[in-house]
Amino acid sequence: MAAISPQLADDLWQTATVLADAARAAILPHFRSAGLETESKGAAGFDPVTVADRAAERAMRDLLAVHRPQDGILGEEYGPQPGQSGLTWVLDPIDGTRGFMSGTPTWGVLIAVADESGARLGLIDQPFTGERFEGGLGRATWRSPHGAGPLAARAPRALDQATLFTTFPEIGSAAERAAFARVAQEVRLVRYGMDCYAYALLAAGQIDLVIEAGLHVYDVMAPIAVIEAAGGIVTNWQGGPAHEGGQVLAAANAEVHAAALARLNG
Amino acid sequence: MAAISPQLADDLWQTATVLADAARAAILPHFRSAGLETESKGAAGFDPVTVADRAAERAMRDLLAVHRPQDGILGEEYGPQPGQSGLTWVLDPIDGTRGFMSGTPTWGVLIAVADESGARLGLIDQPFTGERFEGGLGRATWRSPHGAGPLAARAPRALDQATLFTTFPEIGSAAERAAFARVAQEVRLVRYGMDCYAYALLAAGQIDLVIEAGLHVYDVMAPIAVIEAAGGIVTNWQGGPAHEGGQVLAAANAEVHAAALARLNG
Repeated sequence: MAAISPQLADDLWQTATVLADAARAAILPHFRSAGLETESKGAAGFDPVTVADRAAERAMRDLLAVHRPQDGILGEEYGPQPGQSGLTWVLDPIDGTRGFMSGTPTWGVLIAVADESGARLGLIDQPFTGERFEGGLGRATWRSPHGAGPLAARAPRALDQATLFTTFPEIGSAAERAAFARVAQEVRLVRYGMDCYAYALLAAGQIDLVIEAGLHVYDVMAPIAVIEAAGGIVTNWQGGPAHEGGQVLAAANAEVHAAALARLNG
Repeated sequence: MAAISPQLADDLWQTATVLADAARAAILPHFRSAGLETESKGAAGFDPVTVADRAAERAMRDLLAVHRPQDGILGEEYGPQPGQSGLTWVLDPIDGTRGFMSGTPTWGVLIAVADESGARLGLIDQPFTGERFEGGLGRATWRSPHGAGPLAARAPRALDQATLFTTFPEIGSAAERAAFARVAQEVRLVRYGMDCYAYALLAAGQIDLVIEAGLHVYDVMAPIAVIEAAGGIVTNWQGGPAHEGGQVLAAANAEVHAAALARLNG
């Protein structure tokens, strides 16, 4: 893990903030607008891409070219761009495009800075509610039109008192759904379809677990930084690093993480 | 259906607005607060009641005692109170308590005025996002911190292009889930767990269908008024009146309603 000076951390947070503000401005005019243009990225399944998605990533890339030309970029829409600094900006302009297309305020803009060890800085922004969740390099903060405060994941509670979020049943193989069901049948409450907003709620101390599969690196990098800064834990379903995507188990604390991990593999 | 004069309609809307404002003020301090008190209303399943739920209904009932003492009240928390005017206020202070408990901004305050024929006025309020959806007695309007505008449900589109919302898989019998699945497998996109917010999105032209079961009268009365004012249709799964609760099929237009109704029944 490369050392990041306080000055560099400050610069990275300033840049992340400028990017998030630009993404908001690019996306909000399209949210709930009539005649939203979509297309399918591939034949397999429903994966809408919106004009807003591309406009926001374009805006963020243009800003990075000015503010952090030395860094690499890995974005959902336009592919990888190598850098020289050892730092890479990982961008998902609209995580939760299905929610976006449906008008729900549960999608988000994901911005992360990663090095070879994984996530260092993460930002989850919800432009419609005006909420922003920030974690890493000294920050663990939520901000919204209703106020601001520190992010702190929940203290341990028994699995039968826990709240679990997922994007299942729509994502995952049959085996993954079975593993998920072993956890789901033991928790108090299961909720669906929140995409990155679920990770923000976990970091904000509202829920205990998020379990997903089939994620991309740009889906998980920012949530990892935010949740770890809030005291939570994110791994894959084997307990190893999750920042390359795939299966993800995010937990508010070590106890509930261990309980869920045992059921996923049991 | 009793005639409601423009003056009475105006009075009812003014009262509904005062009630919704009071419910917001009563609920918001409890949303995402630590140590939220809950209890189970019954042994069968998870049905949390929050302090906020009761405080909001109490505040609304106190206001009705001043502004509309001649009307009846049917509330989720405190039971029926008969009136003399032929009009009944139907109140659900927090529809979507599971979402509320999880910190998602997808629950809502439901306020309706009904007569013997059904819903006449409906209001769906989301205090955290600041959104309000109003329908009936001359209104079909959304308001939010981002602006305001008319509610208008979507024009017809083929079922395989439609978006369907539900609270399934958590609600409903096996037979109801099977009927739901016949519709779900034909639509483009299915989303879960939005409670009353889904009806607001339907009225706002964002989605095409909401299909649910096991609803109470106070869950459906306000959504019916809002959706009908926006040009949509709400019936039970046999195509009859839905305002007494149970199985509900809400649709953006007659065409998609007919298509979904046919699949629900075989």
